[in-house]
Amino acid sequence: MINVSIVGGTGYTAGELLRILINHPEVYIESVISTTSVGMLVGEMHRDLLGETDLRFTDTFVNPDVIFLCLGHGLSRAFLEENTISEHCKIIDLGNDFRNEPVFGNREFIFGLCESEKERIKQTNNIANPGCFATSIILALLPLASQNKLTEDIHVHAITGSTGAGKKPSETTHFSYRDNNISVYKPFSHQHLEEIGNTLKSAGNVNLPTINFVPMRGDFTRGIFASVYTKWDNSMSENDVIELFKSYYADSPFVFVSDKPISMKEVVNTNKCLLHIEFHNGYIHITSIIDNLVKGASGQAVQNMNLMFGLDESMGLRLKANAF
Amino acid sequence: MINVSIVGGTGYTAGELLRILINHPEVYIESVISTTSVGMLVGEMHRDLLGETDLRFTDTFVNPDVIFLCLGHGLSRAFLEENTISEHCKIIDLGNDFRNEPVFGNREFIFGLCESEKERIKQTNNIANPGCFATSIILALLPLASQNKLTEDIHVHAITGSTGAGKKPSETTHFSYRDNNISVYKPFSHQHLEEIGNTLKSAGNVNLPTINFVPMRGDFTRGIFASVYTKWDNSMSENDVIELFKSYYADSPFVFVSDKPISMKEVVNTNKCLLHIEFHNGYIHITSIIDNLVKGASGQAVQNMNLMFGLDESMGLRLKANAF
Amino acid sequence: MINVSIVGGTGYTAGELLRILINHPEVYIESVISTTSVGMLVGEMHRDLLGETDLRFTDTFVNPDVIFLCLGHGLSRAFLEENTISEHCKIIDLGNDFRNEPVFGNREFIFGLCESEKERIKQTNNIANPGCFATSIILALLPLASQNKLTEDIHVHAITGSTGAGKKPSETTHFSYRDNNISVYKPFSHQHLEEIGNTLKSAGNVNLPTINFVPMRGDFTRGIFASVYTKWDNSMSENDVIELFKSYYADSPFVFVSDKPISMKEVVNTNKCLLHIEFHNGYIHITSIIDNLVKGASGQAVQNMNLMFGLDESMGLRLKANAF
Amino acid sequence: MINVSIVGGTGYTAGELLRILINHPEVYIESVISTTSVGMLVGEMHRDLLGETDLRFTDTFVNPDVIFLCLGHGLSRAFLEENTISEHCKIIDLGNDFRNEPVFGNREFIFGLCESEKERIKQTNNIANPGCFATSIILALLPLASQNKLTEDIHVHAITGSTGAGKKPSETTHFSYRDNNISVYKPFSHQHLEEIGNTLKSAGNVNLPTINFVPMRGDFTRGIFASVYTKWDNSMSENDVIELFKSYYADSPFVFVSDKPISMKEVVNTNKCLLHIEFHNGYIHITSIIDNLVKGASGQAVQNMNLMFGLDESMGLRLKANAF
Repeated sequence: MINVSIVGGTGYTAGELLRILINHPEVYIESVISTTSVGMLVGEMHRDLLGETDLRFTDTFVNPDVIFLCLGHGLSRAFLEENTISEHCKIIDLGNDFRNEPVFGNREFIFGLCESEKERIKQTNNIANPGCFATSIILALLPLASQNKLTEDIHVHAITGSTGAGKKPSETTHFSYRDNNISVYKPFSHQHLEEIGNTLKSAGNVNLPTINFVPMRGDFTRGIFASVYTKWDNSMSENDVIELFKSYYADSPFVFVSDKPISMKEVVNTNKCLLHIEFHNGYIHITSIIDNLVKGASGQAVQNMNLMFGLDESMGLRLKANAF
Repeated sequence: MINVSIVGGTGYTAGELLRILINHPEVYIESVISTTSVGMLVGEMHRDLLGETDLRFTDTFVNPDVIFLCLGHGLSRAFLEENTISEHCKIIDLGNDFRNEPVFGNREFIFGLCESEKERIKQTNNIANPGCFATSIILALLPLASQNKLTEDIHVHAITGSTGAGKKPSETTHFSYRDNNISVYKPFSHQHLEEIGNTLKSAGNVNLPTINFVPMRGDFTRGIFASVYTKWDNSMSENDVIELFKSYYADSPFVFVSDKPISMKEVVNTNKCLLHIEFHNGYIHITSIIDNLVKGASGQAVQNMNLMFGLDESMGLRLKANAF
Repeated sequence: MINVSIVGGTGYTAGELLRILINHPEVYIESVISTTSVGMLVGEMHRDLLGETDLRFTDTFVNPDVIFLCLGHGLSRAFLEENTISEHCKIIDLGNDFRNEPVFGNREFIFGLCESEKERIKQTNNIANPGCFATSIILALLPLASQNKLTEDIHVHAITGSTGAGKKPSETTHFSYRDNNISVYKPFSHQHLEEIGNTLKSAGNVNLPTINFVPMRGDFTRGIFASVYTKWDNSMSENDVIELFKSYYADSPFVFVSDKPISMKEVVNTNKCLLHIEFHNGYIHITSIIDNLVKGASGQAVQNMNLMFGLDESMGLRLKANAF
Repeated sequence: MINVSIVGGTGYTAGELLRILINHPEVYIESVISTTSVGMLVGEMHRDLLGETDLRFTDTFVNPDVIFLCLGHGLSRAFLEENTISEHCKIIDLGNDFRNEPVFGNREFIFGLCESEKERIKQTNNIANPGCFATSIILALLPLASQNKLTEDIHVHAITGSTGAGKKPSETTHFSYRDNNISVYKPFSHQHLEEIGNTLKSAGNVNLPTINFVPMRGDFTRGIFASVYTKWDNSMSENDVIELFKSYYADSPFVFVSDKPISMKEVVNTNKCLLHIEFHNGYIHITSIIDNLVKGASGQAVQNMNLMFGLDESMGLRLKANAF
């Protein structure tokens, strides 16, 4: 059994990790660290876990086999500075501290996108888990990038659920504001652009064109729907492109190309990513859907853990879709 | 023109008042008082008003013809103590400070339910505007109370939208919590029970039976759906009851009895209350729907103002339903 | 491995069964029967299953170890008449044909509420799977019924998600109608009242009082929230009642008593039922939540299958909650 | 008073017209034509109108001052062929029959976008009312088109509410499908592209670049949020562009430029269009919001009627926003 510790245990991604790991056949959850809720039953905070665990939050950190860091952005580095982590303890950081600056002491963090870095993930002790928008957008473009086929400006609109904004209540997550509402935020300047660009370049697209990305706030809780297009020069036939995508993801247990248009709920509450590809007016148009908390965060983190410990990549991640 | 001042101008009921009064043909909005947003354009806070008014929040209170108090519960009394209100200035309090304790200095507050107190409202300078749940439930029972027909326990479930909980973000108004969710709060103990009981008694139901009231939080923004039933002894025929309701509300421009079952959105964004009555298993079952912010708050307040100033009761209140 | 056939494979409950059984370690899905979609990939109809199965709908019925009937109400009996079912084939009917008239030929159907009929379920070949409203309401009352403690009128409001109305589009499942809307249907006359009454009586409440049940349509997709109360004579202390509930459900892997108020999403996408009990004004008030498609239909059907085949009751049913 | 007839009276746009016209001070609704619901009270179909009108549907068409055609696309032309319309009767068609083929007999239809065609609308008897997507997108681009400034590919994602899909239930308007879901339809090929292009060209943008338009289905009932961008060559300063927009719409009572980012609900249930403009990475990015049923259909139709009859353009259209 793998001894696991979850740090920052009261937030959304920690809750989602607990939901997954509690049924993982090779995991023992040793501790759930929270400085604000010490002693409280985990099931009192993450109320759906009532009856499923007797764990309580603690602030006593004992080195496990792997730590999941579920802290606010910027706090992972601070945690590692303030605590002594044994050399053999693996780290999976769900924040963004190490995605673009991957070094801490003598630890080097690998960008944990299983579909592009599987072999390096198997060898590393340190994972920077990808961001949710980044995951949905990279998976839409990765096969093309692997062939150095991204040459023209890329246009992305992606709409995210409210859980992407975290647990702390705010004006834009107030139900009265958000219900039946749509808005844009951080257009052309979202912080995930950097990890998207880095990943596509290292996949083989040496000179990456501009990515124009307009993120939108949706009136739903879970999921990301990304709509991505770029000019297409027909240097590959439409069929060849679709075959490229299918073969690129043939080894992935969670990424599939749909021949029919997709709608977001087809992946909600699963670790899957579905892609759909069409060609119009000289453009290739790719839609991509994930659950922001599963494939976009905690599910992908567990997928990374599975690879790091030599387990089947999909162990504990065959989740029933919500579907409705 | 009636000079109006709105006190506590940044909250939901103040915004709703502004939306209504801005198009009211006999109203001039003299000031919108807010101690926290002095100088800000009203349209920057209540963003739907952009382009419709150049008003700015102020903290300078000049005695108008009527003040609407849109303060948190408990703060109206404090405001009246801290400010000198001229004798001729009328007061309409949307909070609950004067509903059950209706005296302040030499001012006596009338419970402003236009359907039961119309004549007294026309004569008064001081209105305690009814609560939203109270409005929906009282209107379901008022005709029976007027005939002293409420003799057995009354059973009420009523479900409210998120705007009923106010603007301040909280755990139970977080979109991630509330979307697609239902919960109960304050069962059998909601603070509106007192004003409901007082009103039904003074309408003629001398010995009021117990009212069991289970309030529920709904996953919508506007509206209250109340389901009310009590044992029915057949001392009146079913037709006579329905006729009683129709005749009781014949003079009301906003309360109607529907012969068919009702759904909440039929009144959202209007000042209407719809009622539907059925008889089953020895019970009379009444459903009642209102918009909590309009008939349950700001619309009813304007209706009171109209009556107090001798205007047509429905002036400025012929609002287009949202319908969808 | 248990060979399974699902009849009526295109509807909501069949889809939900497939989502569960596809990951069940002891099940082989032999056929998914549909007369309207023969030859179509199951994943094209239930789109979340894309990439998870190569099954196609068929109309060729071969006797498996167990059939799940997912047909419209009234059609299960017809199916059994038109097809020859081998004597050894077990039947689990998700419709309502055999709940109150439990005999077909020499087959006798057991009402498949695992919490009250576990031993008989283990012995039978034929299950009438309980209705969704019935499940939520019975579980709220069963411990009291077992002690013959239900003596006064019972008052129930329960609100259900749109999936309870099935897949066929209609006026009241149109998004434009249902979004942000609430309505009542079949007040005091819902068809589940009969199975509720029968079950509570056979649990030990010989003289069952009237159950007043007002069903409501909610603006969410999954889940039932039931609010149930009845007069309480204090013949048992409050603590004793709560202990009664906890001990009654001590053996159940899915029913839990929450010490804190509950909200519906705590069980959505799981096979759990959560209960919460309070005492007010001489009444006992019980809230009960389930996922209508899981514990209220397909999950409970799999739970029954597990018991009928001597498996662990919760096998394949440790589902990750949706939570948001 | 203007005598009005509404043809196709049971659909969404007819209902919305009724909601508006019933309070219009210069309108008398002479007839509401429906071949399917003759004799039914209008308030039984459009249930929010209960208590506000005694009108009944009829199939007897008497020539009024103006007809609003609220028929399915393609049926307006058929109606005009089958009925004799007097020469003096004005026609406002809410369908798409005459937007791109504007001639019927000796009637010529003007594209009824009040912001670009006000003078011609005042002179005409025949209006082709713009489509909802078209309205939101054209208003985002019109000031630039008037200066012939659209030279590079234009990129548009726009998301619409379920009422845009009409009243007839379908798979993609089923609540169970649509709630908390997002999908794309008709990417790069929506039928409104033609009227968008024609209007921008005739506004002064002689050589229109390609418009790439990805329409999306949102999980809300009312509203369109359009996100539009194109490369910007800095031939005008950012301030000059914003001033251009403000001055272009200075005469419009319903179109406003917001200095702050906008969210869709700011205009729901109003006839307003709000625009917000930002500059990033060499692109100009414009967001545009309308209510698809009001400014995108029936409100705009009434605005056209006002202009055609010499009334104040905003008469009857000062609608209270829903806001939440």
